[in-house]
Amino acid sequence: MAKKKPLRIGLIGYGFMGRTHSNAFRKVPNFFPELKYEPQLAAVCARNKDRAQAFADQWGYESVETDWKKLIARDDIDVIDIAAPNNVHHEIAIAAAKAGKAILCEKPLALDCKEGEEMVREVEKAGVANMVWYNYRRIPAVTMAKEMIDEGRLGKIYHYRSNFLQDWTINADLPQGGAALWRLDAQAAGSGVTGDLLAHCIDTAVWLNGGIKDVSAMTETFIKERVHQDTGEKMPVTIDDACVFHCHFNNGSLGLFESTRYARGHKALYTLEINGENASIRWDLHDLNRLEFFDYSDEGIVRGWRSIHVSDGDQPYMGNWWVPGLCIGYEHTFVHQVADFLRSLDKGEVCSPTFREALETAKICDAVLDSAKNRRWEDVS
Amino acid sequence: MAKKKPLRIGLIGYGFMGRTHSNAFRKVPNFFPELKYEPQLAAVCARNKDRAQAFADQWGYESVETDWKKLIARDDIDVIDIAAPNNVHHEIAIAAAKAGKAILCEKPLALDCKEGEEMVREVEKAGVANMVWYNYRRIPAVTMAKEMIDEGRLGKIYHYRSNFLQDWTINADLPQGGAALWRLDAQAAGSGVTGDLLAHCIDTAVWLNGGIKDVSAMTETFIKERVHQDTGEKMPVTIDDACVFHCHFNNGSLGLFESTRYARGHKALYTLEINGENASIRWDLHDLNRLEFFDYSDEGIVRGWRSIHVSDGDQPYMGNWWVPGLCIGYEHTFVHQVADFLRSLDKGEVCSPTFREALETAKICDAVLDSAKNRRWEDVS
Amino acid sequence: MAKKKPLRIGLIGYGFMGRTHSNAFRKVPNFFPELKYEPQLAAVCARNKDRAQAFADQWGYESVETDWKKLIARDDIDVIDIAAPNNVHHEIAIAAAKAGKAILCEKPLALDCKEGEEMVREVEKAGVANMVWYNYRRIPAVTMAKEMIDEGRLGKIYHYRSNFLQDWTINADLPQGGAALWRLDAQAAGSGVTGDLLAHCIDTAVWLNGGIKDVSAMTETFIKERVHQDTGEKMPVTIDDACVFHCHFNNGSLGLFESTRYARGHKALYTLEINGENASIRWDLHDLNRLEFFDYSDEGIVRGWRSIHVSDGDQPYMGNWWVPGLCIGYEHTFVHQVADFLRSLDKGEVCSPTFREALETAKICDAVLDSAKNRRWEDVS
Amino acid sequence: MAKKKPLRIGLIGYGFMGRTHSNAFRKVPNFFPELKYEPQLAAVCARNKDRAQAFADQWGYESVETDWKKLIARDDIDVIDIAAPNNVHHEIAIAAAKAGKAILCEKPLALDCKEGEEMVREVEKAGVANMVWYNYRRIPAVTMAKEMIDEGRLGKIYHYRSNFLQDWTINADLPQGGAALWRLDAQAAGSGVTGDLLAHCIDTAVWLNGGIKDVSAMTETFIKERVHQDTGEKMPVTIDDACVFHCHFNNGSLGLFESTRYARGHKALYTLEINGENASIRWDLHDLNRLEFFDYSDEGIVRGWRSIHVSDGDQPYMGNWWVPGLCIGYEHTFVHQVADFLRSLDKGEVCSPTFREALETAKICDAVLDSAKNRRWEDVS
Repeated sequence: MAKKKPLRIGLIGYGFMGRTHSNAFRKVPNFFPELKYEPQLAAVCARNKDRAQAFADQWGYESVETDWKKLIARDDIDVIDIAAPNNVHHEIAIAAAKAGKAILCEKPLALDCKEGEEMVREVEKAGVANMVWYNYRRIPAVTMAKEMIDEGRLGKIYHYRSNFLQDWTINADLPQGGAALWRLDAQAAGSGVTGDLLAHCIDTAVWLNGGIKDVSAMTETFIKERVHQDTGEKMPVTIDDACVFHCHFNNGSLGLFESTRYARGHKALYTLEINGENASIRWDLHDLNRLEFFDYSDEGIVRGWRSIHVSDGDQPYMGNWWVPGLCIGYEHTFVHQVADFLRSLDKGEVCSPTFREALETAKICDAVLDSAKNRRWEDVS
Repeated sequence: MAKKKPLRIGLIGYGFMGRTHSNAFRKVPNFFPELKYEPQLAAVCARNKDRAQAFADQWGYESVETDWKKLIARDDIDVIDIAAPNNVHHEIAIAAAKAGKAILCEKPLALDCKEGEEMVREVEKAGVANMVWYNYRRIPAVTMAKEMIDEGRLGKIYHYRSNFLQDWTINADLPQGGAALWRLDAQAAGSGVTGDLLAHCIDTAVWLNGGIKDVSAMTETFIKERVHQDTGEKMPVTIDDACVFHCHFNNGSLGLFESTRYARGHKALYTLEINGENASIRWDLHDLNRLEFFDYSDEGIVRGWRSIHVSDGDQPYMGNWWVPGLCIGYEHTFVHQVADFLRSLDKGEVCSPTFREALETAKICDAVLDSAKNRRWEDVS
Repeated sequence: MAKKKPLRIGLIGYGFMGRTHSNAFRKVPNFFPELKYEPQLAAVCARNKDRAQAFADQWGYESVETDWKKLIARDDIDVIDIAAPNNVHHEIAIAAAKAGKAILCEKPLALDCKEGEEMVREVEKAGVANMVWYNYRRIPAVTMAKEMIDEGRLGKIYHYRSNFLQDWTINADLPQGGAALWRLDAQAAGSGVTGDLLAHCIDTAVWLNGGIKDVSAMTETFIKERVHQDTGEKMPVTIDDACVFHCHFNNGSLGLFESTRYARGHKALYTLEINGENASIRWDLHDLNRLEFFDYSDEGIVRGWRSIHVSDGDQPYMGNWWVPGLCIGYEHTFVHQVADFLRSLDKGEVCSPTFREALETAKICDAVLDSAKNRRWEDVS
Repeated sequence: MAKKKPLRIGLIGYGFMGRTHSNAFRKVPNFFPELKYEPQLAAVCARNKDRAQAFADQWGYESVETDWKKLIARDDIDVIDIAAPNNVHHEIAIAAAKAGKAILCEKPLALDCKEGEEMVREVEKAGVANMVWYNYRRIPAVTMAKEMIDEGRLGKIYHYRSNFLQDWTINADLPQGGAALWRLDAQAAGSGVTGDLLAHCIDTAVWLNGGIKDVSAMTETFIKERVHQDTGEKMPVTIDDACVFHCHFNNGSLGLFESTRYARGHKALYTLEINGENASIRWDLHDLNRLEFFDYSDEGIVRGWRSIHVSDGDQPYMGNWWVPGLCIGYEHTFVHQVADFLRSLDKGEVCSPTFREALETAKICDAVLDSAKNRRWEDVS
């Protein structure tokens, strides 16, 4: 067996996303043995040393750092993986680019597209590999949808609609901000559901259906004040609890998007549907192994939505897992993304979505937030 | 508009089935204007004159009778429609045949196949039109399944499975027998779920998949004693609450059947699935407008069960109703059956299922009950 | 049996809606025997006498008229039922009101809300019974949703979303306008999907969730020119093929609406979902017997969306039909609406939706069309 | 962090099941950090040294063996994990027991229950920890079903039904036997679908619903001859392609079981449903994160099957994975089983299913095969 090339990973942040990435780095060599690169868990970095050490012990990181600048300064690190809150992506990524590291960055790219533009400029100037963790592109059913669209099976597209519905912040007693709840604090997160949830919908949409021209949006903050964990005081809530927008895609199709954390009954219901002249596709995250497909070219009387259980060896990524009918889950999206990243390194290609691609999503998010604030249509710059 | 030929109906029984038939007779001319015959509601017959009159007023019957022999003796009646309990089918049908009437008989044909054989003999001797109300063949989705099988879309058949699950007799305080509950009394009904529910599954199965060779069955009566409505006394329950059997079809496929009134959560869940070499079909009564279809000849990666909403004009019977996407319901099966019966009269053909066809189901039911009683395989005679 | 009071119906129009109404008038006495009024099919009116006569023969109308003014002038008519294209609702309704007739009018109420306001004024001045056929309120599952909301089961409402998706006009060769296709001609229909489909979504929404404050909309006409059936010439298409809007309800919840005839794979998929603090409800027209319900007060680990098969005797309207588990269909909504109308006459109450209630929907439709045209938020007047 | 106790694993077999086990051993420390034991991948054993080495490299085994007797003889091995074909379970397990090793054995336990009885005797005599990989008990939804039944939520049980449907051997050109296809060779596998698929259904059923008293079964081999991979000759097929049985459980409920590899359209559709007096449960492997639950104690009008997405932290095992709404997959069942095994070692308890428990399933499988052969009811010994 040919010796693999090691790729030394330095992870920043040990929260939820730190776990998903670490698991992916560890599993890739087991399930994608054909790859030439092998991730090595060189170091995890976090301010709290004890917690960082506990995380390192649990996941097998060789060392810990408490200052991300030191991590970036280390010669034995090839890749900086940013799994820290949104408000530090910008500074870390630029420093890592300047140090010549490859960079994997959690989504959304940054707090806003101004930050994002600087990040794109720096990584491109440095010429380093860069990728943003919009993981849902690598659900096999979603990847297959992309292939089907690219093959022209859907024909001219008329409609794209996508939701991301949750219900976990309905309780008025839930605090805002602080450690595990930084996503509820606009200072750390940049926005509420727009950057957290809708950004996923937009990333997939642009990937599947091309760019967006203009948007008309509406946001809402249902519960106006919550206790902030850091201060213990009741303060105005500054994030958006819900965001809705409609838009024109550049290809002439109409888009309809919604995300909320107030849709009682939905845990993490990311859905998408795309209607073309010849065929349509539907998918949702709660039943992620299934792709629904309607093909108008089927004979009329037996035409219907097909429920495709995407678990066969000739469906995207599935040849590396089990046998037909056996499900995979959420975490596999990250494994697939690492596998594709390693493959791209070997081929000397970019791995999508790059920072530049993620910037497109950031621009749309900014246009959406502006439109909601100004109560008018906004062009995507 | 050409004048239609009147077909004078005499209905016996005004219970649940009396309503379904009456509605069908009334609706056929509105929705199937192409038919040459038109049913006329000549008389309804029941022992209780006041109730019969109320029913006649509600449904537009011209007259009432309290003695079915008088009804049969009337010259102005063309068709005797038997919607009375199972234990009177035999006597009425034979008398009606001898009087030269066309006969429509509720299912099951009779209490057992001995009675059924006599009925077949008499209607065939008399040469009268005859039909049994196994209405579920006329669900458009089921009719379409039949057409698909006959076209050979499924190829060689391996498996047929069918359930009829209900839960309405779980309560131990429910009485047995009497007026509205005669289905719980073996004297009036002949058997429990076997004749009431499983007979439907068997009728459809034989229609779709051909004859059954041998059966191995099991029945159960979960609640052993119930108060009888007629006597007010607690008496042994003699019907089967549940019946399960497996079998060989003549075509070599395996059958698996179950019916019960103790399946908590299911109101009237009649299901069927048939697996062929090339394709499979599934259907259930709770979502009766849908047919599920799996076609192995679809391209591999986009193969999946199709959920076909059977509501288009080119699907069976649906051209006579509304527009695509608009549901029909349970009662329409009876309208379709009347329409087919009228069409058969005009063409001089039989209308399926005839008494002879229904006798096949009766034989299988008898074999099932014998097998359960004797705890051994039984051949279908 | 107490003699019923006859209610003499004069129907204008014999198209699709003429059939649904006629069937409803005929079935009500059979299935709702408790009602004191009984519709009598006095006359059908249409310009083409032969076709009107054929329709009268098929459905049992006693007479035909070719001039609706003569129909309105007849003393033996109690109710004028308007099932003609949208552009004649206004004139007929006002004349009927002046003649003191009760009026049943197909939806949408009129071409626009200016017409609608005049109609409301006249029926109220005349003091005649009036009702608009927004039939989907009478789907038992939808009616039950209304009762559940009114009982407070959902609590504070956060989101309302509703779609009406079809795909029947995708073909570029389909002509516009003329006889059976008047819905594709803005002259006859007023608008495209907005008045035809979205109006249903809005009517139900306002009924379930209260009034709408402001809207931001987008419409699209995908195929710009089609041959007009009347002229045989290719002309600009003036209807909207698709319409999307988001809005604020007066109760503070957010609304999201979409209708289109270009959603490949959907025949007539009317859907609605409402998310409250304590519970959520979902429903769609393709599986109209089911209501999905999520109740947050259920114990956490066994919480889930319930699929309720609305077919039990204690669920709205279902006690008048069959037994649990047996489906009803589209046409039953009209029977229910007639039953409610007859009941309201007996009680001396209005029957919802009245012209005034339907005007509210017309105002929202106008605001939606204005918003799309002007590319800005519009208040609902 | 307290140092974990190492548990040195020796795996025999590197096929499909070798992968599932290896992945589980590797993931447990990452996701179940609370456990005191930590598996160490000491050695993998297989006859082909190169392949064994490649597997070891891929999965991180420290060493390879080509003779399982040598593996068992090694002092540095604590656990023998048998993932080899069924016909070697018996000999290896007995040798491992005699060597005092803990034993994990793939299912079914052995070729027949005679072999199984000897294995039980030896592990119990040796007093070694032992467990059989009936992994589906550890689907969170299935584990939750078990807890719900044990809490009495279902009440008296009336019905248990379970299927395992596949379609991968329909093609007549598929060979039998040999390397990857040993499951199609009765010599290596003992039986066809009975031991491979139905054994899973039975294991879960007995766990959830208690012992089985007697069975009536039917088996079928649809394609009678296939080329054997080892000989290249067409030979009679000796496995069962399909197996159906009904039975009485000791608790008085009725059971209905079916497995086949000829159900076109189903990849690996393991389903189960259990109907109790008060509630019912349904589950299937294609949508493994969902449990369907019907609770009769719900208020009548809003009663319905709940679709529970089993992905919350307070549902079995899910607190160790992600956040609500995010799916896990097939492989997680093995992780859970290893976690439970490690926990049982720490507590000094057995880990279910033990060899003795798996023997119960073997007895039922034998009775099923006997019943099919003898065409009569058979008692489970």
